[in-house]
Amino acid sequence: MPKPHPNTSERLLHEGLRLLSQQGLRGVTLGKLAEHVGMSKSGVFAHFRSIEDVQIALLEHTAQSVAPVIIEPALRASEGLPRLEAFMHAWFGWTARAGLPGGCPVAAAMFELDDVEGPVREKVLELEVGWRKLLRLQIDDAMRLGHLDSGLDPDQLVFELCGIYLCHHVSLRFVRDPSADTRAQRALASLIERSRPARS
Amino acid sequence: MPKPHPNTSERLLHEGLRLLSQQGLRGVTLGKLAEHVGMSKSGVFAHFRSIEDVQIALLEHTAQSVAPVIIEPALRASEGLPRLEAFMHAWFGWTARAGLPGGCPVAAAMFELDDVEGPVREKVLELEVGWRKLLRLQIDDAMRLGHLDSGLDPDQLVFELCGIYLCHHVSLRFVRDPSADTRAQRALASLIERSRPARS
Repeated sequence: MPKPHPNTSERLLHEGLRLLSQQGLRGVTLGKLAEHVGMSKSGVFAHFRSIEDVQIALLEHTAQSVAPVIIEPALRASEGLPRLEAFMHAWFGWTARAGLPGGCPVAAAMFELDDVEGPVREKVLELEVGWRKLLRLQIDDAMRLGHLDSGLDPDQLVFELCGIYLCHHVSLRFVRDPSADTRAQRALASLIERSRPARS
Repeated sequence: MPKPHPNTSERLLHEGLRLLSQQGLRGVTLGKLAEHVGMSKSGVFAHFRSIEDVQIALLEHTAQSVAPVIIEPALRASEGLPRLEAFMHAWFGWTARAGLPGGCPVAAAMFELDDVEGPVREKVLELEVGWRKLLRLQIDDAMRLGHLDSGLDPDQLVFELCGIYLCHHVSLRFVRDPSADTRAQRALASLIERSRPARS
């Protein structure tokens, strides 16, 4: 069997991620993916051994797609609170800026796979835990630099930031509430305000 | 055709809601539902005309299941802030107290159906909008009674409460973080604390 052409792999990941962002993990079947890319199911099978392989590859591709739209803009802000804020602003609604037609694959997967075991769940968990660690690092820096209160519980702040992200996602994309962006920005500003050092 | 026996309808709703809470809307197929209830697909078709009918009936059944575990306990608390707090405490993790094996069907559906149009989406939206109105009413009462600051933006508070609920859901059920309950309670307490009247 000839080695699959790299461009086909890229197209499979590209189209698969678009499908995943709109339909969730259960919506990505080998048949649908083949149809989207315009190839046969056996053609897709030349690239992936199973549907779980496809899903894991698409989740890894999700993580890669996040870098240019969230991580890189955040790294251009100064360390500490400015970077944490840049991170959050870039996180809200990131899928549209990544050119995806749907929502955040990880957020959706956490509701889809909460009662499912196996390697796909493990991959989503790895991405979520990694993401929370990244948020935690920005908070740690902001505390160390005196931008945030040194007595703060950083993991509590991570939890509350994730809550704002999830409610923004639902309000913007599902409820289609025109005030979703403003509400998320206000919630973030208020959370940061009360996390500042007492004397600043 | 004889009228379907009411006990069969109840069993279909009961088993269907269990399935929905674990598998999401895409996981509820006529075949799976028939298998869970131990009847034929055509037997299920005697009760529902389409899979969308099944999904809408299960979403309505979700709303009914919420009453004894969230609404009724909240109504036993005094009007205003105590009732808002009782409401929130009963909302966190309500599916387990309702005897469901999985997560909140509405929360999951908001991520599953954000790019889907049609009557099932409309039903989920109706439930979510109704739920936010119910939260808003408790906040209005608490503001009127002087338990919360009268200058508060009540819809902003609704947004932030929904965020805490969603992050609790994900942290408890997907991440399986043992501190999820404590973090949600702390986030709620802190949000309420900063929403109190300035002079109290």
